Formats: sequence, C-alpha cells, structure tokens
Amino acid sequence: MNRRPIRSAEVVSVGDELLLGVTANTNFTWLASLLAEAGVRVARETTVGDGEEEIRRAVDEAAARAPLVVVTGGLGVTPDDRTRQALADLAGVRLVPDPELLREMEVYYKDRRIRMPRINVSQASLPEGAGKIPNRIGLAPGLRMRIRRAEVFAFPGVPAEMKKLTEDGLLPFLRMRNGEAPIRQRMLRTWGIGENALAEKLRDFLARERPVSISFLPERGGVTLRFRLREGAKGEPEKILAEQTDRAAAILGDLVFSTGGEELEEVVAYLLLLRKRTVATAESCTGGRLADLLTAVPGSSAWFREGFIPYGADRKSGTLGVPEEVIREHGTVSARTAEELARRARAVAGADIGVGVTGVAGPESVEDQPVGRVFLALDSAAGTEVRRWDLPGSRERVKERAARSALDMIRRHLLAEREGKR
Amino acid sequence: MNRRPIRSAEVVSVGDELLLGVTANTNFTWLASLLAEAGVRVARETTVGDGEEEIRRAVDEAAARAPLVVVTGGLGVTPDDRTRQALADLAGVRLVPDPELLREMEVYYKDRRIRMPRINVSQASLPEGAGKIPNRIGLAPGLRMRIRRAEVFAFPGVPAEMKKLTEDGLLPFLRMRNGEAPIRQRMLRTWGIGENALAEKLRDFLARERPVSISFLPERGGVTLRFRLREGAKGEPEKILAEQTDRAAAILGDLVFSTGGEELEEVVAYLLLLRKRTVATAESCTGGRLADLLTAVPGSSAWFREGFIPYGADRKSGTLGVPEEVIREHGTVSARTAEELARRARAVAGADIGVGVTGVAGPESVEDQPVGRVFLALDSAAGTEVRRWDLPGSRERVKERAARSALDMIRRHLLAEREGKR
Repeated sequence: MNRRPIRSAEVVSVGDELLLGVTANTNFTWLASLLAEAGVRVARETTVGDGEEEIRRAVDEAAARAPLVVVTGGLGVTPDDRTRQALADLAGVRLVPDPELLREMEVYYKDRRIRMPRINVSQASLPEGAGKIPNRIGLAPGLRMRIRRAEVFAFPGVPAEMKKLTEDGLLPFLRMRNGEAPIRQRMLRTWGIGENALAEKLRDFLARERPVSISFLPERGGVTLRFRLREGAKGEPEKILAEQTDRAAAILGDLVFSTGGEELEEVVAYLLLLRKRTVATAESCTGGRLADLLTAVPGSSAWFREGFIPYGADRKSGTLGVPEEVIREHGTVSARTAEELARRARAVAGADIGVGVTGVAGPESVEDQPVGRVFLALDSAAGTEVRRWDLPGSRERVKERAARSALDMIRRHLLAEREGKR
Repeated sequence: MNRRPIRSAEVVSVGDELLLGVTANTNFTWLASLLAEAGVRVARETTVGDGEEEIRRAVDEAAARAPLVVVTGGLGVTPDDRTRQALADLAGVRLVPDPELLREMEVYYKDRRIRMPRINVSQASLPEGAGKIPNRIGLAPGLRMRIRRAEVFAFPGVPAEMKKLTEDGLLPFLRMRNGEAPIRQRMLRTWGIGENALAEKLRDFLARERPVSISFLPERGGVTLRFRLREGAKGEPEKILAEQTDRAAAILGDLVFSTGGEELEEVVAYLLLLRKRTVATAESCTGGRLADLLTAVPGSSAWFREGFIPYGADRKSGTLGVPEEVIREHGTVSARTAEELARRARAVAGADIGVGVTGVAGPESVEDQPVGRVFLALDSAAGTEVRRWDLPGSRERVKERAARSALDMIRRHLLAEREGKR
C-alpha cells in the first residue's frame, strides 16, 4: 500500500450550470482553501459539463498528473448524473446495484410520500469495489477509488453534502496519510486602507529577505495580508509566522483588526462584550446594512439595543426628532445630521454608543452631494466624533463600505477607550 | 481569414489565489454567463497557478481543442505576471517593448507621485504582433493572438478590467464573427417552494416531450427554472420559449415572481411604484436585512418610509409601543407580537403597508421557540395578515430566508390588491 504523504491534488468540477455561468463554483473555493490548510497544494482545477465523455477525459488527465483527484458533481441519483459511470469505466469495473443505497432511496421517498420514480432503481448502482462514504444529508454516497496511480474521491455537487463528505471522508484520509498538517500560513486583516497604500507603509519591511512570502488580498471585508512560510525556511513554523506577522502588525498599528481570521463585526462584538457596552444605530444611506452586519453575530441581542432607518425625507425629524432646522441648514447628507442621528439613536434606545450614517448611495446624487459621500458619527459619554468618506463604486459597494467603515469606527472607539484616551 | 461562426470556447483562469481558495473565481462565472448569452458554449474551464510553465500547458491544451480561448489573470505589470511570456512562447514570437504602454506606465506612476519601479520597464513588453485592446481602467492592455488554430484573448484578472476589456474587445469580435446571438433561453424565478415540490407540481408538464430542456436551479433568491431551446427545435426560438415558459408559469401561478430575471426586491419595488404604496418595516430576528434588501433598489426612498429594529428585549415596547402585556402573554416570538410590530411600524411611519418580523435566528432558541421559527405580519388598510414559517439552516440562512419571505408577502399583497381581492 502506498503510504507516501500526498502534497498535491487536482480538482475536477462537474456541472453544466457552472459552464453556463449560472452558478459560481463556491465548492471549489471551499475545497481549495481546506486542502491548502491540510498542506495539499491544488495544482489545477478543471470544470467540465455533465456529459459522461467529458467527465471521463478530465478525470483521466488529472489522475495521470496528480496523486489525489477530487471530483465534485454529477453524483446525484438522477439519470443526468454520469460521474459514477465515468469513474467505473476509468477503473475498468462495472456498475453494480447497491442494496443499501436502494433501501435508503425507498425510505427517502416513502418519508416524503412521493412515489419513487422507476428510473431510480438503476441509479442505485455504484462502481464495483469502490469505497463508500455515507451521506448523512442527502442520498448519494461519496466514493473513493483508485484510477491509474491516483486516489480519487468523488462527492455530490450539493454544497452542504460535498462539505460534509469531505470532512467525513477526505480529511480523515489525509490525516492518516500525511499526519497533522503543520500551520504554514497566517493572516492579518485590515480595514480602511487600500492595497497600494498598505504596500507603501510596509515598503521597508517588504524590501528585506524574509522566511515568509506575503500576498495582498483585497476582499469585501478589507485587504487581507497572507504570510506563507517559504519552502526550506529554518526554524519552527509557528514561531516564524508569529514573529513575522507581529512585526508587520506593529508597523500597521490599528489598521489591523484581526490576526485570527475573524470578521470585523466579530471583533466589534468581542470588544463590546469585553467592555460591557451597548450600541444603537440610525442609518439612512446604508438602509439597515450596519444593523444586519452587527446582528450577524450570535448573541448580539446582549449588546445591540435598537436600530433606526429613517429613510423617507421627513422621517429623520419624525421618530428620532432630529431638529428640522438642522436638516434645513445643513442638509440630510451632512456632518451635523450624522451627529444628530448618532446622539438621538443613543438617547432613544438608552445605549452606551450611538452610530449615525447619512450619505448618497447612488446612482443619483442628493442635495448636490456626490454619489459615494458618506458622513459617519459616533456618540458616547466621551462626546461625538464624525468622519466624512468619499467611497467609490456602485450603490451596493457604497452601502457595504459605509457600513463596514461604521463598524471600524466602533472598533477604534472601543480600542481607544481601553487605552484610557477616553 | 477564417470566418466561420464560433460556437464553443475554453477558458483558462490564472492565479495562485484561486487555487489556494482565497478568491472565488467570479470572473469565470461572469464570463461564462456572457458567452452563453452570446451563443458560445464553454466546453471546459481550467484553473492554473501563476507559473509560466503551467500557464503555457493549459493554454496549449485548450487551443488544441477549442476555436476560442479566453485567458484571465497573470497579465498585470509586475514580475509575477507570466501570461505574456507564456503566450509569446506558444505563438513562437518574442516579447518586444511597447513604447505606448511604457509611456502610460510613466504617466500612471507620475500621477500617483510614486517612483516607477525599475523592473517595470521590462514589464512594458508585449508578444510581437499581438493585437492590443486598450485598458481604460488599469495599466495592462488586453491581448488578442492566434495560437494553433485558436483565437486567444487574454485579459488581466482584476474583475473590473477583465469585464471592460471583454466588452470592448471580445464581444465586438464575436458579433462580427457570429452576428447577433439569438435568444436560446428564458428563466422563471420562484419563491416559497423547494426544488422537489416544484418538480411535483410540473409533473405532467415535464412528462411530455418538449422543444426545450428545463433545469431547476436553487439559488439564494429562490429556485430558478431555466428553459433552454433544444438543438434542432423547429420554429422561431423566441416564440417557442415564450410559449413554453407561459405554460409552466400558468401552472405555477403566483409562485413565479419574475419572468425577466429580476430579483424579488426589484419586483416588489416595481409593484409599490405602480400602486403608489409606501412601506415601513419592524424587524427583530432579521436585524435590518429586510430593509437592506428593499433599499438595494435605486430610488427606494420614493416608497420606503422607515425601518425599525427593536432588538433588545425591552425595545419592542419602547419606540414602537408594543403593549407589554402582549409580549408577556404571547412572547416576543409570536403571531400577536408580529402583528403589533407591523401595525405600529405602519402607524408611526405613516406608511400604507407595515411589515413585522419576529423569530429565532439561532443558534440558541428563545422562549422555548425552536431555531428557525419566524412570524411575519403585514398590516394595511385591508387588515392584518400573519404567517408562521419554520426555516432550516444557519443564522445567516434564517435571516436571509425570513427577509425574502417578507418581501414575497408584500408582493402577494400587492398582486391581490390589483385583483380587487382587497
């Protein structure tokens, strides 16, 4: 039996809907990230349609190149699902009826009071001799077989099933074969600074030769810095990674919001719990996105008091009672209105911190203010701060970035509080 | 010159970040959908890392199989970007400095007051004889060249640049070569019914032989039915598609919310404008998601009056004044509380329609109500309706599905209004 560790893999994704651009291949992104963490490099990914011949070719080519091939999709229990037949052909075996699978299908249809389609009996067949990974969510089991010299794992394309079967079948196999994967990368997540400006701040740091390679990954939740151990780096991996990320983090200061992969809203939730502070929000242009992000965190009812979305032109003076003369003199999109929103949200909800958001999400400008202009205010016992942003991009992007900038404002406020600045 | 229409293509995606699972390949999904609309079938997609050799191999293999190959990524102006060199090797030409590109790079860095890195001079080179597609957003131009017998287009991986260059360079080429693409598919979008139940409702319809093939695509915004014209179907494509989708739509009734691809929130916005109705929301468990979806639609300030998020246990009696005895007797997660939220949101905001949401997003249960239980209420001049849902899945899924079910409730209300039921 081959017992060498497996360090590289290929993935074959099966599905017409992927090639038609109807569905994004999020399965692959999930799988690739998981394999990277397990110390397995994905050398290539191939997407093909549902046809038996194209599946057979792609898997055959992948098995000729890589010691591990993971196939996702085309493994359901309908006649369109041709992966089973393609794999059987490649392994030179027949498809044989699987009594256990047939029984499970009967129970499945009976539970749902649906007559089992006749065609399904022939779908309850598996390649002879294939290892079966039980599917606890859906019907079709995962498969494990040898093709050429490669270990081939095949999973249904339904994301929840694919993930569960990977965790139940592929990960234990990799652990057995490779041992526990050493940590080879660490992340620093930042908010409020672009990729180029980050690189500029780290210029001296990046100029020196280091035992890690550093990538800049712009994502919706900010730019992430990924530190990966270089091949042949000397010393204990975890220690090197900690040392290098700590140095960069010291240079970047409070631009870094997370060193453990957490989202910005999770960091804010943690700090609010730690400092025993509560929050209320009054959002105009973000239309509830800020509250939605805050309440994405389990247990948020402990510190999120109340959200207000005074969206109609007259509603800012309504529930929250922003004085009409403030709006008349300064406009709904103004620093003063943002301040009033923050103060009144805090007062009405009886929260420690009030956040106010007003701006122009677009596509039309408002009161001669340009699209993307946003005022954020934070009110607490220490007083009121306000910031102006000019954010690029679509309506969706402006809402998202404004809401995350507001989260970051709460984070910075709570950090400063710890340091006794407030 | 080869003038035959191009009906199939392959795509090669280049980028370590894709194979590491750090970035989802949204470029491919966008490109595939666009090619499908243009009548070009994507036969295979291959993702490789940033290495020159792996790019060369993948493009060479693709060019041997398909008449059109689109390469995305590895085309920036840094030394890591190896696509240019790989393509030059495959075409058997040299990389030659491009004076125009060099000048643009100098201007780019000067405008940003950054010293141009020396290395970049060598990066301002292009494969000899390659067609250049000007990049109006970033630095690196798109390329068009012939490799084997295939037309190869290469674009940078930055999504905005890739999209613009595809529109500027690839689409005009396809139109010239193929003429205007005939419409070959139509969608019906549904909400509130699962894939299996949909298939059951359409059993008789699906049992007959038809000039279209029908796929069920479960997405976040509901299950979409895709009708695609079969090869060799006789008659005018648009007419056949309209006839078939109309028949299915008649069977499904108001489960179908869109026949033109619109999102649920866009349909609701359209109906609100049409009927001249305004909305206010009071959300507990969705925490602002419903308001966020409504305000995703440009111009929503015309009909979205105000949103309330009384999240803290005592806040439902606060701003909105839900009577404390209602909450004490029925609980915060109850039909009665949802009704009160809807009524009071409508009254306080002065809107035509009030929507109330209360439920258990999880992961913890509340007041002995199970995770996923949600009460939705809608209040209007015609009275108050309330519905109970038990939604499966994570906190995020419950929030999303509850918010979309509330949108659907508004849609159904407005449809019934038209039919004079109210």
